Amino acid sequence: MNCKLFLWSILMGLAMISCQQRKETSVSMEGDVPQVRVFDKGNKITNANFTGTAWLQMLVDADSLNQNSVGSVTFEPGARTNWHSHPNGQIILTLSGKGFYQEEGSPKRILKKGDAVKCPANTPHWHGASTDEEFVQVAITSRIDGPTQWLDKVTDDIYLK
Amino acid sequence: MNCKLFLWSILMGLAMISCQQRKETSVSMEGDVPQVRVFDKGNKITNANFTGTAWLQMLVDADSLNQNSVGSVTFEPGARTNWHSHPNGQIILTLSGKGFYQEEGSPKRILKKGDAVKCPANTPHWHGASTDEEFVQVAITSRIDGPTQWLDKVTDDIYLK
Repeated sequence: MNCKLFLWSILMGLAMISCQQRKETSVSMEGDVPQVRVFDKGNKITNANFTGTAWLQMLVDADSLNQNSVGSVTFEPGARTNWHSHPNGQIILTLSGKGFYQEEGSPKRILKKGDAVKCPANTPHWHGASTDEEFVQVAITSRIDGPTQWLDKVTDDIYLK
Repeated sequence: MNCKLFLWSILMGLAMISCQQRKETSVSMEGDVPQVRVFDKGNKITNANFTGTAWLQMLVDADSLNQNSVGSVTFEPGARTNWHSHPNGQIILTLSGKGFYQEEGSPKRILKKGDAVKCPANTPHWHGASTDEEFVQVAITSRIDGPTQWLDKVTDDIYLK
């Protein structure tokens, strides 16, 4: 192989590696935003009913005839709600990422994009992100028979079990 | 340029074009599915309350304590519901595509990814895809005070206005 051919081969090899790397980046992200994000992240949740960092984008407020509130919650890795229950239950729709959901007395479940959970009325439960991946969910909460009952924090022991 | 170098250049050029094409394809689609699709399309809707082709993936059924049903509806271009109303209103979340929404007596609105609509109780309205783009929405419907009231078809005149 002559010198020119050798150099040409090296250059083309580097160009192909660069092309492959750009492809992988563009599939998973749009700038800093995963392509599957539907709603804005909204505002950082600052109340004491959460562990870690989570964000709330309210989408619909309840009124006297339609007593559902709807919000999109983005949990950063490790973030989760406290244990809580709802007099009329709660509906959770997973939009993206990997999350955890657990009802009292049942094993922790993994939630992925497209999963829908119907949490029964008056059943203590918690939900949040997995340890290594953001989790985005829509929560649909009826207030006909009263507001959310907030309970204890989810300890690291329970969260990691 | 010798013959070997010329052939090598042609081969590397073809390889890079191939790499670029794979990149563009993988950004916009996952197989036949756009990356923004969260839920399955579900089953083709065959009742007479729709015009055109629409698909329903039921996510949550109502029960006695949580009387909300939740479903993801995919409207193909041109498809729309009939006029209808709900005793407790309806919540619509836009997941992807471009859709139309209109309440009786108000102008038609355009819906895009991330839009949330709260349709008031007992208000005739319709929703569906635009003429040239699929529209995917989640519908959250409470049945506390009764089921959906289905009304007339949305004529082409109204749809295109």
